[in-house]
Amino acid sequence: MKEINGGICAPNSFLASGIRCGIKESASKRDLALVFSQQPCTSAAVFTSNIVQAASVIVSREHGKSGKIRALIANSGNANACTGQAGLEAARRMTEMTAEKLGIATEETAVASTGVIGVPMPIERIEAGMAELAAGITDNGGDAALEAIMTTDTRKKFTAIEFELPGNASPVRIGAMTKGSGMIHPNMATMICVITTDAAINAVMLDKALRRAVNRSFNRLTVDGDMSTNDMAIVMANGAAENNLINGEGPAWETFASALETVCTTLAKAMARDGEGATRLISVTVSGAASEENAAALARSVAGSSLVKAACFGADANWGRVLCALGYAGIPFKPEEASVTFASPAGSLPVFKNGEVLSFSEEKAKTILMEEEIDIHAIVGNGNCEAVAWGCDLSYDYVKINGDYRS
Amino acid sequence: MKEINGGICAPNSFLASGIRCGIKESASKRDLALVFSQQPCTSAAVFTSNIVQAASVIVSREHGKSGKIRALIANSGNANACTGQAGLEAARRMTEMTAEKLGIATEETAVASTGVIGVPMPIERIEAGMAELAAGITDNGGDAALEAIMTTDTRKKFTAIEFELPGNASPVRIGAMTKGSGMIHPNMATMICVITTDAAINAVMLDKALRRAVNRSFNRLTVDGDMSTNDMAIVMANGAAENNLINGEGPAWETFASALETVCTTLAKAMARDGEGATRLISVTVSGAASEENAAALARSVAGSSLVKAACFGADANWGRVLCALGYAGIPFKPEEASVTFASPAGSLPVFKNGEVLSFSEEKAKTILMEEEIDIHAIVGNGNCEAVAWGCDLSYDYVKINGDYRS
Repeated sequence: MKEINGGICAPNSFLASGIRCGIKESASKRDLALVFSQQPCTSAAVFTSNIVQAASVIVSREHGKSGKIRALIANSGNANACTGQAGLEAARRMTEMTAEKLGIATEETAVASTGVIGVPMPIERIEAGMAELAAGITDNGGDAALEAIMTTDTRKKFTAIEFELPGNASPVRIGAMTKGSGMIHPNMATMICVITTDAAINAVMLDKALRRAVNRSFNRLTVDGDMSTNDMAIVMANGAAENNLINGEGPAWETFASALETVCTTLAKAMARDGEGATRLISVTVSGAASEENAAALARSVAGSSLVKAACFGADANWGRVLCALGYAGIPFKPEEASVTFASPAGSLPVFKNGEVLSFSEEKAKTILMEEEIDIHAIVGNGNCEAVAWGCDLSYDYVKINGDYRS
Repeated sequence: MKEINGGICAPNSFLASGIRCGIKESASKRDLALVFSQQPCTSAAVFTSNIVQAASVIVSREHGKSGKIRALIANSGNANACTGQAGLEAARRMTEMTAEKLGIATEETAVASTGVIGVPMPIERIEAGMAELAAGITDNGGDAALEAIMTTDTRKKFTAIEFELPGNASPVRIGAMTKGSGMIHPNMATMICVITTDAAINAVMLDKALRRAVNRSFNRLTVDGDMSTNDMAIVMANGAAENNLINGEGPAWETFASALETVCTTLAKAMARDGEGATRLISVTVSGAASEENAAALARSVAGSSLVKAACFGADANWGRVLCALGYAGIPFKPEEASVTFASPAGSLPVFKNGEVLSFSEEKAKTILMEEEIDIHAIVGNGNCEAVAWGCDLSYDYVKINGDYRS
């Protein structure tokens, strides 16, 4: 498996574009994106579990049932959530216009939106931009498309890999881009993730691979505990790599699914690092648990603790808060069997072992925690299972960014 | 029912003291408190649900089973949590010394600790201070005792009321003090609440009253979502008011229980207002729910949302975040039946009604949200049940306070 250039346009026969149509107030920022496969696709998608769902989620969920999505239109600057019937009509109109311009069926088109909630969608601006958007699609339009879905993101988050499937001569590719920095939480939240692949895989097995990958990546992510109305992750597979169709479990599916998981994990970590106001990426590994689910719940509890996050911002080795957050995760374990270690590229420092405090150098702790990537490793018993969750520190800038987002 | 002076010493025959024994580094801050009833008591207590429990919680839970606690020793500056066997011995020693000094049984004594986790308890400093602590108890020592349990609290939080029980000639009193500003969350967290009363009530009915009151007050409180290892709320009733013993449900118990709830609610709101770095108290009322539990879960979800809290800090009427937080509370409701109103002493402003956005004046919204006390009222349907939860805004100072708490 190797990294390659090109993001969502790295797999064969995917085109993309991104333009400014005027949804965002800024005169210089792109706000409308299109991703399109020149060949028919199989597709799979997962959506927010929030009861309040954006119009784009409602419409894409309907269309996604076909398992044949091959085009996605996405906008930033307006979430089109809590916008009632007019919002729903706007979302449908976005898919209709896309289908029309591309000469495909409306049911093959999905829509994603991100931005402020509850403001009527200026559909006329999207209508006015459609010709430019559709005319602009190229096989190097991934970067423009990515810019057009960003909101408070400070970094572009994309990746692409190439790998071989067992029993196939030529390689396949997976490309992906994601948007999201605030409101990222287990079970997904203000995140739009678009994944493209030229693998040939049926919709059922693609769905299975996506759910496993999302569960081990985006669902292990926590920035501020809020779950958005707009999240979605979608994967489109067009078969342009001409591998033998993956239509069941086996070595080819396993290889594909684990490659997809790698892509999602790469982006999940990039999102945590780009958490609103974040200065550090925090990886929390919990091992010794009775199940992967237990380990994940414990790890997420630590990564999501405001007090742990604030301590990491201050480079303060406050392991007591780690223990405390493990303790309220709702997963039974014996504190007297627990251990905690802080680590980073600057070193590793056990601070708590089998329920007892270790004496440690505060100076060394500070050196370790001043790094941009911090690992917190907790052992909670003698179980065989482990999981990782990612988060970021809680900084002054988080408050600043979110104190006045609408203005 | 009327407010009276005196806090925990307002009820008859309760004495208290607070001294500095040197657990806190500051040379001027008290850190050791004692509360004592001159007469035997019935008692009830509730404790943190965190799996990681401070030594004080373990010991007080044991002693509390008797229902006869009449003395509490409490310290700040050290949580005595994650301190292993030595910590447990220190907590036991605190109750033994207290019992000895006061001439009561060890089982009649509880202990509470708050402060940094995982630092060995300097029991020798407490030993050295015991004589001064015990000698200093007076019927106006409530203020000193309160100072001795405060950590990052910026305000003293105490109250006392006097009221009459049906069928009794002379009034009874309830006094209370509480410590806690960060780490306050549903199901209690770094909170020590000490309640005294001169009512005569048996332990079973006292326990029932306390659990109902805590459920509707402290369990409706959320500051940063972390649940502490050290929380406890304890009530001691010494019968010095000589009312007819309350030993079952009926008008007298109802009157007592609702007075206790008033005391706890007053303190819960004071704690929310004093949340670390808080500039505003946020009260979230959810009505139209199918049950009180559902309403409470929805209200807590809004009060606990980092994004709602940051928006309140910025006086930003971001009602979409309110809807979003309702949506992930795990309680079913129909967004198209939901309504949201912001209110404060400066006015009331409906912003969302029956699933539709209302146009509103941003200027008026700002005026309302700049107040120190904000109400967010959400209606989620046609149910008959309502609940209130309290929280505070998320400010730069929260991050500052918690970024380097240990130093």
